[in-house]
Amino acid sequence: MRESGREVNQLRPIHLETNFTKHPEGSVLITVGDTKVICNASIEDRVPPFMRGSGKGWITAEYAMLPRATESRNIRESSKGKVSGRTMEIQRLIGRSLRAVVDLNQIGERTIWVDCDVIQADGGTRTASITGAFVAVVLALGTLMDHKKIKSIPITDYLAAISVGVLPDGSEVLDLEYQEDSIAHVDMNVVMTGKGEFVELQGTGEEATFSNQQLRHMLDLAEGGMKEIFDIQKEAIQSYHDQMNIS
Amino acid sequence: MRESGREVNQLRPIHLETNFTKHPEGSVLITVGDTKVICNASIEDRVPPFMRGSGKGWITAEYAMLPRATESRNIRESSKGKVSGRTMEIQRLIGRSLRAVVDLNQIGERTIWVDCDVIQADGGTRTASITGAFVAVVLALGTLMDHKKIKSIPITDYLAAISVGVLPDGSEVLDLEYQEDSIAHVDMNVVMTGKGEFVELQGTGEEATFSNQQLRHMLDLAEGGMKEIFDIQKEAIQSYHDQMNIS
Amino acid sequence: MRESGREVNQLRPIHLETNFTKHPEGSVLITVGDTKVICNASIEDRVPPFMRGSGKGWITAEYAMLPRATESRNIRESSKGKVSGRTMEIQRLIGRSLRAVVDLNQIGERTIWVDCDVIQADGGTRTASITGAFVAVVLALGTLMDHKKIKSIPITDYLAAISVGVLPDGSEVLDLEYQEDSIAHVDMNVVMTGKGEFVELQGTGEEATFSNQQLRHMLDLAEGGMKEIFDIQKEAIQSYHDQMNIS
Amino acid sequence: MRESGREVNQLRPIHLETNFTKHPEGSVLITVGDTKVICNASIEDRVPPFMRGSGKGWITAEYAMLPRATESRNIRESSKGKVSGRTMEIQRLIGRSLRAVVDLNQIGERTIWVDCDVIQADGGTRTASITGAFVAVVLALGTLMDHKKIKSIPITDYLAAISVGVLPDGSEVLDLEYQEDSIAHVDMNVVMTGKGEFVELQGTGEEATFSNQQLRHMLDLAEGGMKEIFDIQKEAIQSYHDQMNIS
Amino acid sequence: MRESGREVNQLRPIHLETNFTKHPEGSVLITVGDTKVICNASIEDRVPPFMRGSGKGWITAEYAMLPRATESRNIRESSKGKVSGRTMEIQRLIGRSLRAVVDLNQIGERTIWVDCDVIQADGGTRTASITGAFVAVVLALGTLMDHKKIKSIPITDYLAAISVGVLPDGSEVLDLEYQEDSIAHVDMNVVMTGKGEFVELQGTGEEATFSNQQLRHMLDLAEGGMKEIFDIQKEAIQSYHDQMNIS
Amino acid sequence: MRESGREVNQLRPIHLETNFTKHPEGSVLITVGDTKVICNASIEDRVPPFMRGSGKGWITAEYAMLPRATESRNIRESSKGKVSGRTMEIQRLIGRSLRAVVDLNQIGERTIWVDCDVIQADGGTRTASITGAFVAVVLALGTLMDHKKIKSIPITDYLAAISVGVLPDGSEVLDLEYQEDSIAHVDMNVVMTGKGEFVELQGTGEEATFSNQQLRHMLDLAEGGMKEIFDIQKEAIQSYHDQMNIS
Repeated sequence: MRESGREVNQLRPIHLETNFTKHPEGSVLITVGDTKVICNASIEDRVPPFMRGSGKGWITAEYAMLPRATESRNIRESSKGKVSGRTMEIQRLIGRSLRAVVDLNQIGERTIWVDCDVIQADGGTRTASITGAFVAVVLALGTLMDHKKIKSIPITDYLAAISVGVLPDGSEVLDLEYQEDSIAHVDMNVVMTGKGEFVELQGTGEEATFSNQQLRHMLDLAEGGMKEIFDIQKEAIQSYHDQMNIS
Repeated sequence: MRESGREVNQLRPIHLETNFTKHPEGSVLITVGDTKVICNASIEDRVPPFMRGSGKGWITAEYAMLPRATESRNIRESSKGKVSGRTMEIQRLIGRSLRAVVDLNQIGERTIWVDCDVIQADGGTRTASITGAFVAVVLALGTLMDHKKIKSIPITDYLAAISVGVLPDGSEVLDLEYQEDSIAHVDMNVVMTGKGEFVELQGTGEEATFSNQQLRHMLDLAEGGMKEIFDIQKEAIQSYHDQMNIS
Repeated sequence: MRESGREVNQLRPIHLETNFTKHPEGSVLITVGDTKVICNASIEDRVPPFMRGSGKGWITAEYAMLPRATESRNIRESSKGKVSGRTMEIQRLIGRSLRAVVDLNQIGERTIWVDCDVIQADGGTRTASITGAFVAVVLALGTLMDHKKIKSIPITDYLAAISVGVLPDGSEVLDLEYQEDSIAHVDMNVVMTGKGEFVELQGTGEEATFSNQQLRHMLDLAEGGMKEIFDIQKEAIQSYHDQMNIS
Repeated sequence: MRESGREVNQLRPIHLETNFTKHPEGSVLITVGDTKVICNASIEDRVPPFMRGSGKGWITAEYAMLPRATESRNIRESSKGKVSGRTMEIQRLIGRSLRAVVDLNQIGERTIWVDCDVIQADGGTRTASITGAFVAVVLALGTLMDHKKIKSIPITDYLAAISVGVLPDGSEVLDLEYQEDSIAHVDMNVVMTGKGEFVELQGTGEEATFSNQQLRHMLDLAEGGMKEIFDIQKEAIQSYHDQMNIS
Repeated sequence: MRESGREVNQLRPIHLETNFTKHPEGSVLITVGDTKVICNASIEDRVPPFMRGSGKGWITAEYAMLPRATESRNIRESSKGKVSGRTMEIQRLIGRSLRAVVDLNQIGERTIWVDCDVIQADGGTRTASITGAFVAVVLALGTLMDHKKIKSIPITDYLAAISVGVLPDGSEVLDLEYQEDSIAHVDMNVVMTGKGEFVELQGTGEEATFSNQQLRHMLDLAEGGMKEIFDIQKEAIQSYHDQMNIS
Repeated sequence: MRESGREVNQLRPIHLETNFTKHPEGSVLITVGDTKVICNASIEDRVPPFMRGSGKGWITAEYAMLPRATESRNIRESSKGKVSGRTMEIQRLIGRSLRAVVDLNQIGERTIWVDCDVIQADGGTRTASITGAFVAVVLALGTLMDHKKIKSIPITDYLAAISVGVLPDGSEVLDLEYQEDSIAHVDMNVVMTGKGEFVELQGTGEEATFSNQQLRHMLDLAEGGMKEIFDIQKEAIQSYHDQMNIS
């Protein structure tokens, strides 16, 4: 049993509030325990210069935290005048993950901008961002379909992410909250599709290492958690489920 | 009557949700019609270098909008690598306004960081930020008092802000929403104290001008709106009202 | 009587030296007491991208101080790599004010760049910049007319600015010099047209507030000062006066 | 068989030239096929501000490519004025990996700066950097030991990295060169210790996904390649081998 | 004879207006033909971190042009967010030149900031800056002496600069104005002391080259011009001449 | 005799390794004593915007040092986010020098990017860069000729650079190494053509001055050294020698 009372394979409560703000084509507030992220997907009717004329679309993601999303206040990246390495890593991960399940050939020369803004952080902000961003992108493509700009939602599978890790006592656990994350020996983020394929796997020993067996245990935990998350996503976007191009 | 059905002297519905996020010493979500701003006040136990040893505290404010707070997506200031002139103007205004009602001598060598993050914009984001930030600062100082670090809340008066303007038909109106703001000939932001004194007055003719008489009408509208806003603030912070140093 | 011996409603001596440097289409050195600002207006035969094809022109202003324009040396903004919030605020104010009296439809797709460079500062640099910049713009448009590129000078009215304020002893005064400005409780900048309409009104309590009555007194002082300033402007540009489109 | 004639489980030739340049405490040129990286380790006798007084040391890594290390010239990051997300990701990975095998408590308040500069790129620059950097750090700590500043080399295990991936034909391969990397469906970087534990595992589907079985195959290939790399490292630093603290 | 009517060895009229602005310890407006530069020297009572405790002083120079000092407007370096290579080269040259004749051991731990701001440019701005800056520094040190902070003016010799060049017709000329400078095949800046020693020599073939003989001719021209310039400097600072430490 | 045992007019051993890396059109590693610089020349099939349509080509140079090229580690300019004045000065010098001997009219609308990256520094890095860059440019133009894009190598003469200086004991010496450079009273860089004409001459007194006679001595030393360097260059590019357009 964990300090929070959760089982090692137990997710925190997850909630997806769709249409959270009014302007974006797709807007979601995802809550995972005490972690809260606004995921907005915006459609822009053009692509970056290097893609013009290709007939293909593009997805790009940005990630940020409110200065006081965390226990002590962080300096705003706009004030520092540059984006940190951690932020870049996360926004590259979100964009890359989404591109694995969106058929960019089907959306025309459009860019989907995904903005993940953490308003309260308690561990797992990057995985929550991916899980919420997937839903926001479905909603945005749904809006595009509702406006008769595309005929169906060119998404080939569900997509979600979760963290797993190894605590100092050696136990492998699912969905680390901040208090666990800050002491974990191993931290691994797993991004998967609805069919159970990996999109990304990022495991890191924090001044520590992990064995092949620990890896297998962590991947089992991740797979179990994913199933629950996909159910929550399905419920949130059920009205669009049949228009998705899932083979 | 205005397009929205409001009277010229009618505010949009205003709501203050206190303790909106869990980490800040003071946290407020202010809603003014469709404008929504998270106002967080953080206490840091030190002051900027130029004030060390003075025994006095400091208040500074930062303001930002989520990229898709607006109808079309704005580029993130952290991506551009610099803060725009508009943002700087607004955050200087918020900080200056708050300093007019906080007795910095009474808070010790501490900095109050006020972060106003607009999650949905529909006109009046800077005035909503000031009105919400005031409440967040009271809550943060209340936290400081609850922790026995100060004996009372060193705030000398209530503080709120509202916009007034002149529409193309020549009518003066209170609390402009975005659709009005974008076509107004004159736009004026008024920051006042609970006793009805001015803290800031910023009136701008947008490729237009205004007369002394129009100025007087606008100030009357502002004064009327302020009374309602102060009542809403009082309700939100009633538990701290008696600990404030209002003379 | 003020420390300088001036009456509360007395301006400092104002001088406008036209054609101060040889390259700009319009060049003015404005002297207000010990404050000296070079105001240069440059005509560029194109507009920013967002205005191309509109048939309209644009005015934009930049403001800077020599590092040693002030009592102690300031770090150059080019060395810091960014423009301060104060500078941005001032250059936005200058540009906005000029746009209120120039008919941008009449100047074709041209940009007027106004550069206000303070070579010696003693309070009131932003108001001196506006007063001098107006004259530089008239001269630049006069040059354009002399070159047969426009038929008249598309300026709809005179434009000038002055500061007023409240000193610690409670007296309202006109045209604050640095020593007064640095201790004033209230500082207000007023931008007006020749017909006496407001273009901008920016009043700020410096950790203080002001009443409606004080506001009225300050505006009366400003109006009195403006009359004298317009006379000095008229003398400086008298050769162009009849070609201006003042209704 | 691969286009280059290599077997799926065959490494490119690896060479480590120690003492490549004269100034650094540890200097290595690592060659992996046509990929060449200069890995320099510098000892600085102080730590970053947040670690002062801790008695512990720090390791940090920087990574860059010469503009023409690649087939077409890249713009220099110093000219762009900022470091790309890819560069940040790589230098964070190198630093984190090294910290897993260096006992920072044993090096005193010193910083080890590791600079990996790619002079010729042909795929696998980040894994070559880690493999070479490990040797450079051992040499630098050896220099410190030779100067009697530490008694032994506080390194707890060998460390190396290699890439594995899935080619379009579905075959899993070891040590991708650029031509393979640019078309691979899956790209995975594995960082391991001499004892065969994972330090980092980063697998990415490039607009594709991978199964649990593919993951296992790739990890088997990586493990095989690692054994050869450790032998090459051991030969390069054999004079220091016995002074290392490998348990 | 040159287009301007000047002889090949004839300087343009040079004028030095001392005490041009009121705040700096030393302030000079230098006019060389149509080139005008404000040279201000400021004394700061501390040195950069790397010199603290050395007992020595420091001189550093900054150079800038008003945007419309030139025939067409230049973008302000503060707007671009960085200083150009040309500006850096010039300010390094000015600082280095001055350090050759100021005895930094005699001024205590003080920094002399020299600001050269070109308000009108017509060729030779960097040499005019050096010639004017020397006088500003003498005045600033004179102020320091007048305030009893130093006993004499620790300047070891006069210092001035002039340009020479080779025109397309092959003639060597002294003191090039902009029209000549823009077509010259060779451009050389010479910085000399009152005793006729070189401090700096920077000769550049602009997509051209020059022979040893041309070099000698140009140096002769420079030497001749220098004599006149030193006389003008002496007149400007005659009241301080006897307090200078010229051996 | 100098500390290193060299005569005052003796160069350090110079070596040119051509085709040092595989991607650039021209690649050279130049070694001058312990100074080592990679000089890569890249051909890009377009010119900067301001030259489009001119039919002419362009050459531009960039210079950098690996952080640990020097005795103590330097902060990377990409991390600082800006290029230092020293770097800018050097890269402007390299580009300007090369343009003096390349006939830009003959290379078509192409840009030659020259990258000089110092991997080990021991004085004279900028002169070594020029000497090596010349060879890299010949090789790159040779590649262009080999690909039938130009008919001959449009280079009008050889080009090399060397430093000379005055040591504290008053002796003039050729080719200063770091230990000499750091104490020299005078430092002069000379760039010459094969015919013995000057391209650049940059002499600097470091808080010191130099006489006309010292100048002549230094130029004689430089001329002597140049002859040897040209021989080494000729050997390195002998296969292309006859295709060069040397008159």
